[in-house]
Amino acid sequence: MRSPIDDEIRQIFDQCSGIVEGEVATYIPELAAADPTAHGLCVMSVEGHSYAYGAVDVPFTVQSISKVFAYALALETHGFETVDELIDVEPSGEAFNELSLDARTHRPRNPMINAGAITASSLLPGDGPEQQVTALLDYLAGFVDHPLTVDDRVYASEASTGHRNRAIAYLLRSVDVLRTDPMAAVDVYFRQCSVQVTARDLALMAATLANGGVQPTTGKLLVSRAVLRRVLSVMAGCGMYDGAGHWLTEVGLPAKSGVSGGILAVLPSQFGVASFAPPLNEHGNSVRGVAAFRSLSEHYGSHLFEPRLGRLHTVRHRTTDVDDPGTVRYALQGDLDVAGTESVLWQLTSEPPSTRRVVVDLGATDRVSAHAGELLAEMSRRYLVDGRTLEVVDPQELLTGIPDVTRLT
Amino acid sequence: MRSPIDDEIRQIFDQCSGIVEGEVATYIPELAAADPTAHGLCVMSVEGHSYAYGAVDVPFTVQSISKVFAYALALETHGFETVDELIDVEPSGEAFNELSLDARTHRPRNPMINAGAITASSLLPGDGPEQQVTALLDYLAGFVDHPLTVDDRVYASEASTGHRNRAIAYLLRSVDVLRTDPMAAVDVYFRQCSVQVTARDLALMAATLANGGVQPTTGKLLVSRAVLRRVLSVMAGCGMYDGAGHWLTEVGLPAKSGVSGGILAVLPSQFGVASFAPPLNEHGNSVRGVAAFRSLSEHYGSHLFEPRLGRLHTVRHRTTDVDDPGTVRYALQGDLDVAGTESVLWQLTSEPPSTRRVVVDLGATDRVSAHAGELLAEMSRRYLVDGRTLEVVDPQELLTGIPDVTRLT
Amino acid sequence: MRSPIDDEIRQIFDQCSGIVEGEVATYIPELAAADPTAHGLCVMSVEGHSYAYGAVDVPFTVQSISKVFAYALALETHGFETVDELIDVEPSGEAFNELSLDARTHRPRNPMINAGAITASSLLPGDGPEQQVTALLDYLAGFVDHPLTVDDRVYASEASTGHRNRAIAYLLRSVDVLRTDPMAAVDVYFRQCSVQVTARDLALMAATLANGGVQPTTGKLLVSRAVLRRVLSVMAGCGMYDGAGHWLTEVGLPAKSGVSGGILAVLPSQFGVASFAPPLNEHGNSVRGVAAFRSLSEHYGSHLFEPRLGRLHTVRHRTTDVDDPGTVRYALQGDLDVAGTESVLWQLTSEPPSTRRVVVDLGATDRVSAHAGELLAEMSRRYLVDGRTLEVVDPQELLTGIPDVTRLT
Amino acid sequence: MRSPIDDEIRQIFDQCSGIVEGEVATYIPELAAADPTAHGLCVMSVEGHSYAYGAVDVPFTVQSISKVFAYALALETHGFETVDELIDVEPSGEAFNELSLDARTHRPRNPMINAGAITASSLLPGDGPEQQVTALLDYLAGFVDHPLTVDDRVYASEASTGHRNRAIAYLLRSVDVLRTDPMAAVDVYFRQCSVQVTARDLALMAATLANGGVQPTTGKLLVSRAVLRRVLSVMAGCGMYDGAGHWLTEVGLPAKSGVSGGILAVLPSQFGVASFAPPLNEHGNSVRGVAAFRSLSEHYGSHLFEPRLGRLHTVRHRTTDVDDPGTVRYALQGDLDVAGTESVLWQLTSEPPSTRRVVVDLGATDRVSAHAGELLAEMSRRYLVDGRTLEVVDPQELLTGIPDVTRLT
Repeated sequence: MRSPIDDEIRQIFDQCSGIVEGEVATYIPELAAADPTAHGLCVMSVEGHSYAYGAVDVPFTVQSISKVFAYALALETHGFETVDELIDVEPSGEAFNELSLDARTHRPRNPMINAGAITASSLLPGDGPEQQVTALLDYLAGFVDHPLTVDDRVYASEASTGHRNRAIAYLLRSVDVLRTDPMAAVDVYFRQCSVQVTARDLALMAATLANGGVQPTTGKLLVSRAVLRRVLSVMAGCGMYDGAGHWLTEVGLPAKSGVSGGILAVLPSQFGVASFAPPLNEHGNSVRGVAAFRSLSEHYGSHLFEPRLGRLHTVRHRTTDVDDPGTVRYALQGDLDVAGTESVLWQLTSEPPSTRRVVVDLGATDRVSAHAGELLAEMSRRYLVDGRTLEVVDPQELLTGIPDVTRLT
Repeated sequence: MRSPIDDEIRQIFDQCSGIVEGEVATYIPELAAADPTAHGLCVMSVEGHSYAYGAVDVPFTVQSISKVFAYALALETHGFETVDELIDVEPSGEAFNELSLDARTHRPRNPMINAGAITASSLLPGDGPEQQVTALLDYLAGFVDHPLTVDDRVYASEASTGHRNRAIAYLLRSVDVLRTDPMAAVDVYFRQCSVQVTARDLALMAATLANGGVQPTTGKLLVSRAVLRRVLSVMAGCGMYDGAGHWLTEVGLPAKSGVSGGILAVLPSQFGVASFAPPLNEHGNSVRGVAAFRSLSEHYGSHLFEPRLGRLHTVRHRTTDVDDPGTVRYALQGDLDVAGTESVLWQLTSEPPSTRRVVVDLGATDRVSAHAGELLAEMSRRYLVDGRTLEVVDPQELLTGIPDVTRLT
Repeated sequence: MRSPIDDEIRQIFDQCSGIVEGEVATYIPELAAADPTAHGLCVMSVEGHSYAYGAVDVPFTVQSISKVFAYALALETHGFETVDELIDVEPSGEAFNELSLDARTHRPRNPMINAGAITASSLLPGDGPEQQVTALLDYLAGFVDHPLTVDDRVYASEASTGHRNRAIAYLLRSVDVLRTDPMAAVDVYFRQCSVQVTARDLALMAATLANGGVQPTTGKLLVSRAVLRRVLSVMAGCGMYDGAGHWLTEVGLPAKSGVSGGILAVLPSQFGVASFAPPLNEHGNSVRGVAAFRSLSEHYGSHLFEPRLGRLHTVRHRTTDVDDPGTVRYALQGDLDVAGTESVLWQLTSEPPSTRRVVVDLGATDRVSAHAGELLAEMSRRYLVDGRTLEVVDPQELLTGIPDVTRLT
Repeated sequence: MRSPIDDEIRQIFDQCSGIVEGEVATYIPELAAADPTAHGLCVMSVEGHSYAYGAVDVPFTVQSISKVFAYALALETHGFETVDELIDVEPSGEAFNELSLDARTHRPRNPMINAGAITASSLLPGDGPEQQVTALLDYLAGFVDHPLTVDDRVYASEASTGHRNRAIAYLLRSVDVLRTDPMAAVDVYFRQCSVQVTARDLALMAATLANGGVQPTTGKLLVSRAVLRRVLSVMAGCGMYDGAGHWLTEVGLPAKSGVSGGILAVLPSQFGVASFAPPLNEHGNSVRGVAAFRSLSEHYGSHLFEPRLGRLHTVRHRTTDVDDPGTVRYALQGDLDVAGTESVLWQLTSEPPSTRRVVVDLGATDRVSAHAGELLAEMSRRYLVDGRTLEVVDPQELLTGIPDVTRLT
């Protein structure tokens, strides 16, 4: 039996397959040889369910999508302070291969333009290009759960034509943003761009980012919380070349595209999605890919700023005991995150003096953040100081480990 | 009794009050007269609860924060097609008052730089500046639930010194992006920047945006869904001048700042927050404001890309009837949004042939999206086609109005 | 009888008449109505001889050529210090109507781009636009020896479409380079551009500049020496829009062109030349005009850096008196300018001790600079100190007024 | 006996020696070690007379001054068409080391900025860097009449720090303006900049350019006429970095400066002048050098657009024979260049019908251009056709080789 979701996504895929606009990238001879009709789409849930259509197992080179992971690995390796001194995080408003650095700081504007990406490549762990490329391949292998390799023909093609990137590298060297051999950094960058992936691979990478940095199938934590937040932020602001603003307004997801026709996008806590279709629009983004993501985002209301569901009142009921009017019961529901907790505490602080005892029932509560637990405990202490009691019913043991909370059994 | 949340925010406020860095804006004489020690912070929940500290009722001019609302009103008035032809949505990487337009399209890069904002002002409803200003004042009054007025001294000061904005307006006129009298458009812009607000007002505006466009206290819908999504996206990418990227990575919320020292930020579905403190950093953003928002975001984990709570398995239990092994029961929890529904459907499609009847219990489910309901109904039909049954227990009547779902009573 | 020079120039004119490339300027509706086949060429010698071909008496608007004269008049009125504080003299490498000022000084890069020209217009003598335009018309009338008027239709056309210039004016106002009403300055500029002239008029203007600032037919000094030097320098570096470098290398004359199809060029001390032909090349310079000037420059070797004639030895003969070997005679020729005088003095200082008397014969000398006279007198004094004598034969009385020179009669 | 010119120049030199402003270039460690008090000035006439003051024999590296000669040699080697396709001749208005090329053509703006200079270096004759450097050294040796060598320490210093130039070279390679190995081109460029010269050497180079491309002491033609014209034009427009416009207006001579403190300037047909003083102004030009050239230009009226001497009437006398009123005699003087010839022909064509015979006396004429001779011959033919005669008295045999001229003996 097929899931109707499967059918819906397939329909979107089929519609986009009919789009013939766009031009295959030609700046590298090997890229120009790409099949313009190739088309793949893969959705991967954070639980590891995958929905795959078309050419999801056709290998192509990762190109600029590698920038996301090289930046992440550089951050994991050197920490924010070191990396931030060398690479800024501002949208540039310029072409991805612009030869310009911040006039004052000399930093590349962000790690998604080539200048920033080459700098990030130079910060990969390892002694020299070989080790650095190996480190990145190992890192990427963790995301896809199988080894990845460099496409030597594309690498050779990049190396023989990548003079503008060499210009960028020497510019970076001239202002001491690159502190190692610029040709070595560019070499790492060329090889990193030439790593062979499939749309399915990219979907797994995206799903890992969606899943808080934990690879959905292996369960390994690959991206620390702070790095993940950083990486998704930079993708949201600068991931789609100079079409970043259109993407953010229309699709509304952190994403990254590459000139070989790949796009990877992240629905935090839900899905990683990847598409592959070589013909590009004027911004360098895959035409069929952009169309598919727009449809998916619209169909599923996945835009970051789409109000998704109606408001859920965290306090489902507040009832006064018939027998004991001094006792008030709160039946909660949903999540006790900041907003939910605020809502509960606001009402608790407003209880009239006649309320001597409050029972908070977490039976229908889904999740409780650590901070929410502490706030509830603090509220409980304040009730006590005030000569009143605040007890919780916690059948799911959501507050385990929080002291000073009186539990009703 | 004070809520501990109240105490926490006050502590953040107090810490930021001690910051003395930054310079009051001086480009308009009237702004230079601002009290550099003034400091206010106001948090407003989507339920209308407010937490206010310091100078939250001190009036100041809204300045660039008005750009958000003029753009929204222009969109509501003319629709996306008309406005998008005249104002792009790309981050600019340039100063807010840059005299540059897109080389190809001649459009201002986005509505948050002056060129885009003046264009938006020219698109406000009404015949001539007077009517346009009145329309905007009326619109803003809806957000704060009381009338707002223009500060005539600041307006006069803007008008007597705003030559660069006049230059921008004539540049826009020269490329037919402005199609009306440039001096009229600039006049509207100067007056819109001179509207007097308080931090409390701004918090209400932000809370309205957080609340899906519905004013929390009046319940009026002020921003339509598509415009809201657009406005929040543009704020996320371009709201904080040329510090937008830093804000997005560090604070991670759609926001807008003004040179008079105001900042407004939106936690979708949760809070609107506003601060007021005149001294600005090198990007033109309030120093104490930025510090406060960074602390709030960190303390409450409010960053857009902060994984907030652990994963909630939508399928809480799957149990086989002891008496009837052909009957399987699914106890769901949390929200049936896209991801939750996908998770359920995935398992339903994987039921072995021996499962002849599935009962899905929505008793502990919080919310169900319209789309989720339809997917469940479709799944139900497919079960039927397959000669099996899928029934729901829906005590909260979450699926009301969805046909083809068999409800167990 | 016709001069063969007349025939030569006519031949060049006829050849250029056949050129049909180029597009008439369309940015002002009135300009677009120009006759694309109109063609005139006028050469005017510093002695007032004129060679005129084709449409030399057809009126057209002076456009950017006016910038030269407004700048000159501003310099004559306010002096270098005041004007140089507001307008720089560097080639810009940018389009003539660029909205950019020097990042550090905020000055327009030079008076030939619109920003600099509008600033110069604001510095014309007079109280308000009316008086300023009148002052410029009076000034220009001196060059052509008849009154000039503003073409009201072109002026109206400029005024109704010149929004970019208004943008420039407000930009200048915003940085205090314009210190008066920007709209007034632009109005003067629009009218100055709309002054009606003919190719013959322009040739007279050019001839005045060629003739050391003295109008060839009236003999009136219209441009002081320092202003003339400045104006010709700026024309040489910046007079031909962004084709200035090509012009300088290929034609090699100070010149200025206008979008109505006029070009004016100066052969210092020799000729003023002007052409009129509306179709423009991609740099905004008249196609037939550029072609004619290239041919003229090549044919007559008029390029500033064309070595024109072979070397003339200032000392034609040095002879020792047969009767008196202690007496040496120098027969000079050509001009005693710096180089000629240096050559003579070099030899005089090298005379052997046996030379007791030198006679310098200026009979065949053409001109003697004041400085050369002084140097000769000083040399004479030194000879005296050395116990030798230096006498001059000066039948043309070229050294009149120079003391300490012993003249042989 | 000292020439008063010698004293005058020494006085200017001494005054400039007292200037202490400016900073020695530090971007290459070896340059930073320069003696800031070093000061030399050398004037060399086209006849080979030299006036030398201070450190005229102290070696330093030629730096950017080499650009002039590499460009000249590239032009001599490949011709204009080939070179012009790769290097434009427009002033750039940008810093000398800007990483920008023309947006449309991708060419460097001119050969005096690094991008253009590196391109010119790549066009030097020879197979590979060694041969190319040797070719340039040989070429330069011709100008100074002794071998020149590369300063290996400065070269090593350039090579170890010249990353920005490498960036430029790869940028040029990426757009196919450089068609050879960018690293080889940059290597040639570094070595060319490191050629050791003295101020005396530079003065000889300048004097060669002043002398129509003929080395004054050896008499060898080193620069062809068209290349010389081109090179002087480019120096006039772009030779002094971003201070080119100020130099052109204030000094008014084709010139080139280098960051090691050298400046070379050309007074066509008169002098080559060179100075050496390491401290630089904000444009990168030697402070004492600029001051000296300004004083020299002002003192000697050497500005290109300084009207130097009063007008010389080419027709000194027109007299009618007392005995034969049908015979008119013209006594000419000065040069028969274009203007002089035009003046004579104008009068000849205006002779009344009663004039049957004209005798043109060239006895006091200095020089006659080839073209002037032809025009006179043509005029003579026209007289003949008209039944009149035109004879010349040509005691200096200035018209030798011109047919159809009747000579009176």
